[in-house]
Amino acid sequence: MPDAGREPPPGAAGSDSQNGHEGTGAGTSAGKASEYAGAPNPDVQLPELDESQLRTLARAGREWEKTTGGARSPGLPVDLETASYPSVAATPTRFGRFAHIAAGEGRSPEVRATAETESLPSLWGRAGQAARQILLGPPLAATAIAMERMRKLVAMPVLSADAISSIAYGPEAMLAILVLAGGAGLNYTLPIAAVIGLLMLAVGASYRQTIRAYPGGGGSYLVAGDNLGRIAGLTAGAGLATDYILTVAVSVASGTAAISSAIPSLAPDRVAIGLAVIALLLAGNLRGVRQAGALFALPTYLFILVIGALIVTGGVHAAGRGWHPLPPPRLTATEGVGILLILRAFASGSTAMTGIEAISNAVPAFRPVEWRNSRTTLTLMIGTLVVLFAGTIMLVKLDGVVYIPGNTVLSQLAHRDFGAGWLYFVTQATTAGILLLAANTAYNDFPRLLYLMARDRQAPRLFLLIGDRLAFSNGIIALSVAAAVVLAGFGGRTESLIPLFAVGVFLAFTLSQTGMIVHWWRHRDQPRWLRSLAFNATGAFLSAAVFITAAVTKFTAGAWAAVLIVVLFIFTALRIRRFYDRAGQALSLRPHGVLEMPERPPSPAPGRRQIKPAPEREAAPPGTEAKPATEAEAEDAPGEIHNLTIVPIATLDLSAMRTLAYAASFRQPVLALHISPTDTEAERFRYYWKTWGNHLPLQVIVSPHRALVAPIYHYVWSLHHDRPDLTLTVMLPEIVVRHWWQRALHNQNAPRLRRVLRPLPQVVVTSVPFHLPA
Amino acid sequence: MPDAGREPPPGAAGSDSQNGHEGTGAGTSAGKASEYAGAPNPDVQLPELDESQLRTLARAGREWEKTTGGARSPGLPVDLETASYPSVAATPTRFGRFAHIAAGEGRSPEVRATAETESLPSLWGRAGQAARQILLGPPLAATAIAMERMRKLVAMPVLSADAISSIAYGPEAMLAILVLAGGAGLNYTLPIAAVIGLLMLAVGASYRQTIRAYPGGGGSYLVAGDNLGRIAGLTAGAGLATDYILTVAVSVASGTAAISSAIPSLAPDRVAIGLAVIALLLAGNLRGVRQAGALFALPTYLFILVIGALIVTGGVHAAGRGWHPLPPPRLTATEGVGILLILRAFASGSTAMTGIEAISNAVPAFRPVEWRNSRTTLTLMIGTLVVLFAGTIMLVKLDGVVYIPGNTVLSQLAHRDFGAGWLYFVTQATTAGILLLAANTAYNDFPRLLYLMARDRQAPRLFLLIGDRLAFSNGIIALSVAAAVVLAGFGGRTESLIPLFAVGVFLAFTLSQTGMIVHWWRHRDQPRWLRSLAFNATGAFLSAAVFITAAVTKFTAGAWAAVLIVVLFIFTALRIRRFYDRAGQALSLRPHGVLEMPERPPSPAPGRRQIKPAPEREAAPPGTEAKPATEAEAEDAPGEIHNLTIVPIATLDLSAMRTLAYAASFRQPVLALHISPTDTEAERFRYYWKTWGNHLPLQVIVSPHRALVAPIYHYVWSLHHDRPDLTLTVMLPEIVVRHWWQRALHNQNAPRLRRVLRPLPQVVVTSVPFHLPA
Repeated sequence: MPDAGREPPPGAAGSDSQNGHEGTGAGTSAGKASEYAGAPNPDVQLPELDESQLRTLARAGREWEKTTGGARSPGLPVDLETASYPSVAATPTRFGRFAHIAAGEGRSPEVRATAETESLPSLWGRAGQAARQILLGPPLAATAIAMERMRKLVAMPVLSADAISSIAYGPEAMLAILVLAGGAGLNYTLPIAAVIGLLMLAVGASYRQTIRAYPGGGGSYLVAGDNLGRIAGLTAGAGLATDYILTVAVSVASGTAAISSAIPSLAPDRVAIGLAVIALLLAGNLRGVRQAGALFALPTYLFILVIGALIVTGGVHAAGRGWHPLPPPRLTATEGVGILLILRAFASGSTAMTGIEAISNAVPAFRPVEWRNSRTTLTLMIGTLVVLFAGTIMLVKLDGVVYIPGNTVLSQLAHRDFGAGWLYFVTQATTAGILLLAANTAYNDFPRLLYLMARDRQAPRLFLLIGDRLAFSNGIIALSVAAAVVLAGFGGRTESLIPLFAVGVFLAFTLSQTGMIVHWWRHRDQPRWLRSLAFNATGAFLSAAVFITAAVTKFTAGAWAAVLIVVLFIFTALRIRRFYDRAGQALSLRPHGVLEMPERPPSPAPGRRQIKPAPEREAAPPGTEAKPATEAEAEDAPGEIHNLTIVPIATLDLSAMRTLAYAASFRQPVLALHISPTDTEAERFRYYWKTWGNHLPLQVIVSPHRALVAPIYHYVWSLHHDRPDLTLTVMLPEIVVRHWWQRALHNQNAPRLRRVLRPLPQVVVTSVPFHLPA
Repeated sequence: MPDAGREPPPGAAGSDSQNGHEGTGAGTSAGKASEYAGAPNPDVQLPELDESQLRTLARAGREWEKTTGGARSPGLPVDLETASYPSVAATPTRFGRFAHIAAGEGRSPEVRATAETESLPSLWGRAGQAARQILLGPPLAATAIAMERMRKLVAMPVLSADAISSIAYGPEAMLAILVLAGGAGLNYTLPIAAVIGLLMLAVGASYRQTIRAYPGGGGSYLVAGDNLGRIAGLTAGAGLATDYILTVAVSVASGTAAISSAIPSLAPDRVAIGLAVIALLLAGNLRGVRQAGALFALPTYLFILVIGALIVTGGVHAAGRGWHPLPPPRLTATEGVGILLILRAFASGSTAMTGIEAISNAVPAFRPVEWRNSRTTLTLMIGTLVVLFAGTIMLVKLDGVVYIPGNTVLSQLAHRDFGAGWLYFVTQATTAGILLLAANTAYNDFPRLLYLMARDRQAPRLFLLIGDRLAFSNGIIALSVAAAVVLAGFGGRTESLIPLFAVGVFLAFTLSQTGMIVHWWRHRDQPRWLRSLAFNATGAFLSAAVFITAAVTKFTAGAWAAVLIVVLFIFTALRIRRFYDRAGQALSLRPHGVLEMPERPPSPAPGRRQIKPAPEREAAPPGTEAKPATEAEAEDAPGEIHNLTIVPIATLDLSAMRTLAYAASFRQPVLALHISPTDTEAERFRYYWKTWGNHLPLQVIVSPHRALVAPIYHYVWSLHHDRPDLTLTVMLPEIVVRHWWQRALHNQNAPRLRRVLRPLPQVVVTSVPFHLPA
């Protein structure tokens, strides 16, 4: 599904992660066009502040001024606004590598990064950048996000590839179950197929309602979250995520099967081939390949054409023999025909309708009037799907084809009706082509889903980032890894993947349709709401039936994995949401807040007073002035920070001297700290210190067992505990070597200390590097 | 070899790594008692300064005073010298966890770390400490280094275990080669053994001279380095290192073979058993097990007794049948008898004299008069060794025993002469015991060798450190790992290890004896120098012969590995030495030095002026005062450091605010830096900045391709290049999370920036942590 050519939403739909307020439900409301589905927007990292947040900011600023007594910070020793430099200077002057843009209409002067400043000057940095550019192309500026709207005749193939390609594995999956009961099982082919056909029509009609209600694009995550609440949205998201992962895995596996049916010698390498295809999809999507409509339309139309021709040819052959079906081969039944078998076959066969939801997600990609055009396209797609599905099933019955491992049903049909000539190979190649296209649509949908979830703080924020090719690189990589793991884990066999597939798809369908029921009930004022509600209710009921059937009858066959993934997904998303909520709360500016200790010191300390975090207060109404800052509030204003710098030193070499000089240059109190193994050594060090001139206070700690890091940690902790008003800065002399192997030649105490001191509150660690010559 | 109970050398033999002056030769001269061999000394990390270094230090102090205009740094906000606190306070007050020791006779007051402050309060830290204490015992204070001198009757077994245990594998190794030529080969047993016996006497006599010349202990590394130069010393060190590693590997393998000869079902697990024994040795030595003389004397005396009894019993049996040797079993010759075979047998057999150098290393461990007592002991040991060796070989001939894989020669002899009863098992157990003891001596020698090399800056400094159990933990671990790798790599088979063994041992012997030749030539004034020289020359010649024989004839059989290890060892040591020399030079205080740029900026910059490092000058003679510091010299005095702090911020949240406040609290110029993906976003950020009150200068860089780290890097670099007089401090707001999994939820830009900015000169990176609540 292309998120190609979507206009960045005006004003950048801001996540409210900044102020830590609990969002409502999944956090986004439907109906806003700007909500549509993850158009990449680099601005999203700096969310727009609302009025009250701006007031908070201004108030924080006034406090700053008060605590500094109005004294401005000292002027800069450099001039930022000097004359503009050439964009790429011959000799690098200060801003030589940055384009310097003078102030223009309403704009402040700014510095703009040029290509040279976007890679690091290390060999690896440059080589990495070069390799990237060769593989993925040069970076694209944010302004290159283009706008493209699709005509119906282009949108239809592009958005239907996923659904129509399901013909390649859906009927086959159904037959694979039925043959277990031998010839008796095959008798149920037509009834089950008829039910699936009806299901397609019902769900299609249901999604037509979704399009009407969500002209901005109504993905299951949005619709379910919007109408049924956050957990339902997450559940739908989990279903969708497994859907997308399995779309890739199943499509790739099935495409590989189409190829290896024609060239059986490739069969043993199916996992390797599948992984190679996923790698190709990964690279292509990281390049940000935008769907060139015509190019992507071709395989779909070709597939429709070829399967249509196959059905007609088969029909002509059958007519030639008086519509007598050929007898299927003798089958030995391993199971009896029972309700369970029939339900399993039904659940498997219903994977023929996966991808049906695609058009409803992508309404804004159509030309105006978007909702009408997309509905027409949806109808067209459902029609094509039903016709192809019915035709294929008919042909299966007429030609007496059954499921045979290693030779797909479509391959058998083509072989029988087209013969072994070029038409057969065209059929197989076209099948593989549309399956590849179907897999590729998941590469648009999955990252966008994660983007939406990340915007709601339910997925790691890294999925918000767009790469320098304007693609959601992290989501693309995550999808490739997941699909590759699933594909390899199930040995690249389509039939093993089918049970997982149905669960996720129909879970998402069910929640989406159920959400629509609530939607129509809430919008009872709209015309024909009841008719829409009835359609959605039918869709929801049928989808739920398939979901439950799939989950129950296929539980041991693999559906358990899908259920497990869904549960884990929801759990993880909730944990992430909680983390971001708390982080946002902790990070939000609170000019009225009292002193909040970010965390308790790690050591248990009986009898210590507990400092409770201040309860969140509402921002003061406009007009009421901020109260003057008390001392306790001072930690985010410079005037009230009391510094003490601690410099642990081992010897009085140049590195230590420079660190001491650096520490003293800030004109704040400095304490030197030395750890001594013996009294003799301590005395010696003190003597050297006096020789040097005793310029700074020195504390010597005798550590008879030669512990080093721990005593410094405890000393710093003790200081903090005794004087919690002090901000302690630990400045570590650190020798920086040029080569990795030299690292073993100097002690690694500085990094160890840094790691250990990190969790301490109000302690800042600085490494003062001393660079050894090469 | 025990470094047990050695007195720390008075005044702590200082390495001169501090002042970077090139040492002469291996850097240490012989004859000083204080040089003896790595008595653990925790003081060695803070080397004693000589007069000129102290003057340099004082001068650096005066410069500091001048640049600060005599203004002292501001007073501390805490009082370091408040009343003494109880050693472990019930409620932790500031120094509650440190023992506070008031000023005493000539001593300043100091803080002493208690056990509580020696482990980190994290769960892992405490658990690690607890596990350590259970495995290795509580830490020992530096003052626990005890003094113990050995009587001859104790020293003999303790120091001879290595040499005498060689009886267990030397004769066998010789026979293993000879049987390749069948019965004809066995005819050469006696002649070769005779030559080896003579060799033992000659080398023994040669080492007697070493003891006379180096009463402070004359290890091969010291003697060769002292007399033949640094490279020769290193080569001897390399030989010794392989010697020690193979002593462990061979002794363990041979001990395992002794056990599995008695209990053949253990044979397949010999590698596992060997590795377990090495693990045991590792743990024991990390505990710092000091050789309790009597305990260690037991296995050696027992072994001598048992083997003596064996020889006597075998002799009695042989006498009973009129000294007719039993016929050896029929052997099929796979090789003809040739000079090459004989030389190989000789080289293998001469491993029977490994460990012979031990006593000469350990002269100061004897009771006075040390050199005389140790010479007597050496003579005693050589005598015992020759008698046991000769007796064993005789018995081999008389009993017609040949080399059989899986049943050691000693086991066969014991079985034949003692029968299958308890005496046989005692023999095997005693053999295993003395071999374990021999392996243990390498655990004393190897870390001490690395300690000496580290003191000469030819090995990583971490080998200087003594653990909290007063053992050279790092050397012990290194030896265990190396021996385990060798043992496992050669499948735990003694015969595969022998070729490597001979090379290292006789390389060290040769260089040591050759060094002694030079020594005597230099000390031609001493009495009987010529006789000593002659002894050493004989020893050197014979050792060299064995070394060359072993290296050439066994090259393809494994000696190549030993040669390779030696070459790599020397190369590595030279690189390390060069690194430390340069580091020492770069780190030494240079009050007269001119501005030295530690390294060139990493980007190629045409037309930039080159700043050449100042040539090292001699320290000014006393009396000539230091010239006043010029601006260019100022970087190690605080008065002339010009600071500019750069704070990169992404959003105006509490974390950013605190970082800005912290930066501003130092009352030095601060520049805020924001990276923007688009102009719109840049404008927005500037608006927020103004809303806040514009308290600090702000620079916005537009990075259209969303690069973040690289533009900041280049901006900082440009600033540095334009104003090399500024010290730039980059203060990064960094969000610290509580759990590892949360790390994926916040961007890792701060660590990435820190890593990237590290190599830049005059740039200091500070992370200002913001701790998220749990």
